[in-house]
Amino acid sequence: MNSSCCRTTHPFDSIIPLPMSQSAARCQRSQASQFFNLAGRPGVISFGGGLPTAEGFPVDAIRAAADWVLEKEAERALQYSASAGEPELREALARWEAQKGVPTKAENIIICSGSQQGLDLIGNLFLEPGAKFLIERPTYMGALEAFELRGPNYVTLPSDEFGLNPDMMGEECRGARLAYVMPTFQNPTGLTISAERRRKLAEKAREYDFWIFEDNPYGELYYDEEPPLSMRAFAPERTITLNTMSKVLSPGLRLGYFLAPKHVIDVMERLKFALDLHTSTFTQLLTARCLEKGLMENHLPEVRQIYKMHAEVMLEALEESMPKHSEIRWTKPRGGMFIWLTLPKSIDAVELLERCLEAPEPVAFFPGIAFYATEKESNTVRLSFVTVTPERIRTGIRTIAECLKSMLKA
Amino acid sequence: MNSSCCRTTHPFDSIIPLPMSQSAARCQRSQASQFFNLAGRPGVISFGGGLPTAEGFPVDAIRAAADWVLEKEAERALQYSASAGEPELREALARWEAQKGVPTKAENIIICSGSQQGLDLIGNLFLEPGAKFLIERPTYMGALEAFELRGPNYVTLPSDEFGLNPDMMGEECRGARLAYVMPTFQNPTGLTISAERRRKLAEKAREYDFWIFEDNPYGELYYDEEPPLSMRAFAPERTITLNTMSKVLSPGLRLGYFLAPKHVIDVMERLKFALDLHTSTFTQLLTARCLEKGLMENHLPEVRQIYKMHAEVMLEALEESMPKHSEIRWTKPRGGMFIWLTLPKSIDAVELLERCLEAPEPVAFFPGIAFYATEKESNTVRLSFVTVTPERIRTGIRTIAECLKSMLKA
Repeated sequence: MNSSCCRTTHPFDSIIPLPMSQSAARCQRSQASQFFNLAGRPGVISFGGGLPTAEGFPVDAIRAAADWVLEKEAERALQYSASAGEPELREALARWEAQKGVPTKAENIIICSGSQQGLDLIGNLFLEPGAKFLIERPTYMGALEAFELRGPNYVTLPSDEFGLNPDMMGEECRGARLAYVMPTFQNPTGLTISAERRRKLAEKAREYDFWIFEDNPYGELYYDEEPPLSMRAFAPERTITLNTMSKVLSPGLRLGYFLAPKHVIDVMERLKFALDLHTSTFTQLLTARCLEKGLMENHLPEVRQIYKMHAEVMLEALEESMPKHSEIRWTKPRGGMFIWLTLPKSIDAVELLERCLEAPEPVAFFPGIAFYATEKESNTVRLSFVTVTPERIRTGIRTIAECLKSMLKA
Repeated sequence: MNSSCCRTTHPFDSIIPLPMSQSAARCQRSQASQFFNLAGRPGVISFGGGLPTAEGFPVDAIRAAADWVLEKEAERALQYSASAGEPELREALARWEAQKGVPTKAENIIICSGSQQGLDLIGNLFLEPGAKFLIERPTYMGALEAFELRGPNYVTLPSDEFGLNPDMMGEECRGARLAYVMPTFQNPTGLTISAERRRKLAEKAREYDFWIFEDNPYGELYYDEEPPLSMRAFAPERTITLNTMSKVLSPGLRLGYFLAPKHVIDVMERLKFALDLHTSTFTQLLTARCLEKGLMENHLPEVRQIYKMHAEVMLEALEESMPKHSEIRWTKPRGGMFIWLTLPKSIDAVELLERCLEAPEPVAFFPGIAFYATEKESNTVRLSFVTVTPERIRTGIRTIAECLKSMLKA
């Protein structure tokens, strides 16, 4: 039987099923993008996104840098380049990282196309079906999207109200290849673990012989006090750190970078070649120019103040509006973009979201259920405050509180 | 035993073995990057790269577009965006493709970060260990880098001096998920298959029920006559085409795009989210602006002439210098960037490369061995001519001919 002889519709309209890999099939089942669509509906007060505020984009500096690069370095900026990244960008980032207190050379850095590609690269490097993989609970939903492609065997890392708790780590960690952690202003909880807990995590990593993958997209966004040093300071020989320019420069450029021992960078460079050859030469040179012109020194303090102000407004609004209930609590972040709200066990956050979207001034947020690799909980909520004006933050939180009260009464 | 108690060196100097996935371990064994390093050595006349010529970069148009985007659309250009790509870019590309003769809407397009990411995305979508996968022989080396991550079961597609020959395809194709083909100005051979062969390939795809993945990086680079239509014209319901802006605009921007039925684009969009969220918003808007300002109409004819001239010089030089020998032959491309040289069976192209690198005016090329998934041959060579001046093309080909003659005498 020849299938072409049986087709009656025009071939442009035929739908032939795709013989998908198991990995791609797992990806299609993920829920995250549905919630993204809800959060992005026009007219909605959205605490759903993880977008940085456009107020924080240094547009003039970027424009000047783009112009400079295309005047001075056009041929190079528009040509193919090395998989590890442009030398001046790697050097500028190494100087910045070293200055924060962890010895770093350009050879310890590889550029990637934003944090999300970094997550996929780590998935490629360490994970495959059955690979034992330690993960926080809750953890970053976008990371789960990348890791799910590889089908690892998740084992939950223990935590308490202060975040990841290495004292409680034991034999369940043995045989794991890797722990995925976000020690600073975690997504989704906003929590930061202490230097003491970081030191203990490094000890456990050595004791049970696993690697630490530290995702650090928000480390620069502290409100007052600088957070403790990167895990690289505590376990340099077995830590791979992923940083991004998305929150300090612009997410639209898609620029991230790894910090790791040189032998790991060499391995990553081969993978990066297979994944996309290299990150845009043009956006790399543009970013290097911004750094050289003092981006971090001049621009970051301003961004931190914007984030701090929005966090304070939301924390006040929660204090004012939320019903008094022993099971209702939220985190008080000291940096970053998120507050994590825990509701009574009886409340389903997806149902709360549906009610909030039907309110006269509709409100969206990300239900916590998207942030668990294991033992999902349905009574948690991630609130993002940075792109919403103070007035709308207050209105939005009032709406959530009202909807919650009506559910508690029912 | 606690490993931390036994360390005597400073942790920054310790090398801890990486518990790599099988996929990453396969990637580390690939040879391609070694040859890349040879080809890029300073002072060497290099026919090794696949770089487009910088003469062909429309620097002024790109600069004007960058400036326009950052003046009119800065907030959007610097922010996160949708995984499928920016609407105006998808629409501009759809208009261009439709005008070439294959019905195409914006919904049939997804943007990716250059062709190499496209290859990895296809690997993710279709391949996994044991998946039956039809592949040309020889085929593009960079594609093998991406596919090798997935460990598919390669089956060779039959070919002759005119390229892929679907008449010879039979039962060995049954059960394959996908065929990877480059029907137009193939990398590495430079060959183009006829409309008749394309029609037959479509028939075979229907008969044996596999998908066609058409890689088309060079289709716009014809010297005189336009090549036959894309495989999408012959098997629209089961063809996925990958195009790139690397050769018509700039490879440094890392901009590619897929053309496929809408239901396939939807599946790819989910994967793209997991792989890197989306391609740079800024470079997408910049490219859309270049297209709107007539990039294809104004700029492409000039690029085609540059490539044609270089191809002619190399073909003449080969005719003039190569030893007359019944087993020495080369392809005569009518577009694209490559000539494929076949040497007598007794000649090892890697040894020839070593000799050419030791010549007074050293010459590099890519040994053909890097371009086989199966049944590797050691007596073939890929020659790239576009970044070398006519004079150096003549000198380089003379050197290769001299080294070859000395090997034939030995």
